[in-house]
Amino acid sequence: MRILSGIQPSGRPHIGNYLGMMEPSIRLQDEGDAFYFIADYHSLTSTHDPAVLRENVRGLAIDFLACGLDPEKATFWRQSDVPEVTELAWILSCVTPMGMLERCVSYKDKIAQGISPSHGLFAYPVLQAADILIFDSNVVPIGKDQKQHIELTRDVAGKFNDRYGEDLLVIPEPQIREDTATVPGLDGQKMSKSYDNTIDIFEETEKKLRKKIMKIVTDSTPVEDSKDPDDSYIVELFQLFASPDEVAEMKDSFRTGGQGYGHYKQQLFEAIRDHFAPMRERREEFERDSAYVDGVLEDGAKRAGEKAREVVDRVRSAVGM
Amino acid sequence: MRILSGIQPSGRPHIGNYLGMMEPSIRLQDEGDAFYFIADYHSLTSTHDPAVLRENVRGLAIDFLACGLDPEKATFWRQSDVPEVTELAWILSCVTPMGMLERCVSYKDKIAQGISPSHGLFAYPVLQAADILIFDSNVVPIGKDQKQHIELTRDVAGKFNDRYGEDLLVIPEPQIREDTATVPGLDGQKMSKSYDNTIDIFEETEKKLRKKIMKIVTDSTPVEDSKDPDDSYIVELFQLFASPDEVAEMKDSFRTGGQGYGHYKQQLFEAIRDHFAPMRERREEFERDSAYVDGVLEDGAKRAGEKAREVVDRVRSAVGM
Repeated sequence: MRILSGIQPSGRPHIGNYLGMMEPSIRLQDEGDAFYFIADYHSLTSTHDPAVLRENVRGLAIDFLACGLDPEKATFWRQSDVPEVTELAWILSCVTPMGMLERCVSYKDKIAQGISPSHGLFAYPVLQAADILIFDSNVVPIGKDQKQHIELTRDVAGKFNDRYGEDLLVIPEPQIREDTATVPGLDGQKMSKSYDNTIDIFEETEKKLRKKIMKIVTDSTPVEDSKDPDDSYIVELFQLFASPDEVAEMKDSFRTGGQGYGHYKQQLFEAIRDHFAPMRERREEFERDSAYVDGVLEDGAKRAGEKAREVVDRVRSAVGM
Repeated sequence: MRILSGIQPSGRPHIGNYLGMMEPSIRLQDEGDAFYFIADYHSLTSTHDPAVLRENVRGLAIDFLACGLDPEKATFWRQSDVPEVTELAWILSCVTPMGMLERCVSYKDKIAQGISPSHGLFAYPVLQAADILIFDSNVVPIGKDQKQHIELTRDVAGKFNDRYGEDLLVIPEPQIREDTATVPGLDGQKMSKSYDNTIDIFEETEKKLRKKIMKIVTDSTPVEDSKDPDDSYIVELFQLFASPDEVAEMKDSFRTGGQGYGHYKQQLFEAIRDHFAPMRERREEFERDSAYVDGVLEDGAKRAGEKAREVVDRVRSAVGM
């Protein structure tokens, strides 16, 4: 069973990215033939500075490896090292009805966010379909917002098979990630770079991490009063990193009163710091050993490229090339 | 000076194709570094039968070589043998505003003709821009109907250079072919497959060629009467293949009267037959020697591929890959 996932390099990952995507992907590498790539072709639709793109790609590779992606288990590569995917995207374009793309809401959403309406942004779902189909992927773990794109991938693969021959392309199944409790940001909204309310998993220093956590919004209940643990972003974040016992203890203390929010923020800070401490250590190692990281991506590209060429050859021959 | 031209394989060429595109391209091979390709990626937007596509590509290669394309002078290859062009197309998509593509009339025209509105059809001008820009082409000979696409290519190249660096992509110049007298079809409309009024340059047999020419529409002026040579499709076609003296002679005879249209059609038949006779002979040779034709295309793909990789490497590095 091939599991495919593409990750856009968009800067330092925050806790929402980690819990929503990185951690589940890393868990999945034990459950099948995981194929994970850094989607730099896709990034061109929003990242226009070559130095930033390079740094984001490198950073994402290091972050993923540090968080536990195991290149012995998962094939991990940079999308643009397997350019065959753009060829398949063109071929798929010729079986993709315009109406299908025009109905994609993510394009409209991105324009509404102020991203300039380029053709790349519009054609994004076709490249995504090629990303998936070029590896005969069986399962694609996604967030809910990607559901429409996987439907499009399935429809395009179906149309291709109808026109050129049964079973030429494998129809993938989406695996929708249950929303592991939405991760609240510092202000209580969903944690997101666009709200500027994130806690990065690798803040530059402990001091900076602590300072950020101290900014979490609270009400102004006096120290001695009882507090509602079910209405606190601190508790919400804490339970993502602490054991059930620790969470129960914090909740009790909330209800009892006698501690200010700063006290609980300190506990949260320590939980997050400790959770990411071993990953931070590995990250520093990889930062120093860029040859290792490059080697992982090269090796991944070699393995992914072999599979991609197999599928592209099959497709080219089917369409008459 | 690099001259680029792409030719869609769409079945047997007729006299309109020959005079409008093939013959001028062949003449241009003496005036610069000619790069000519068979646009099979583009054909996927309209040709959905793999056997037909293969046959059309092979036929076009043979026809062009038979008509005088000289592989010692021109680089001649099949587009899909240099897949790098699809990679550049994706990268260019990310600097191509949607509005630019939405304004292209050829997409609307093709839909009006009944071609299904696929994304490939819509994205066609971006792939065309990549076709041109990937070879640092200086000059692109085109018909008037392609003017908008070359403008788009120039705009996209300009936008890319603005974003990523001066002079990264060469801005091509269009060279608009003066319409060498529109070629009339059997019914007097512009010669075109869609009007079913064509005379192929290589009709299967002389008999078939003659039969077609006999179908040219005329009025019913009696044999003995004077006829207007300036209102005859026969004369219009004849002057494309006969010497000025022969044309003057036919025109005089029209005015004098005494000959039926069949007589002039016979003259036209002979002129066309004789014009294409040496090409037909070469064509039969190439038909028998497919290894030669394959070798020409392979060699062309090698040369074109080297140049393409040089430009794609330059572009990849500029965008941060």
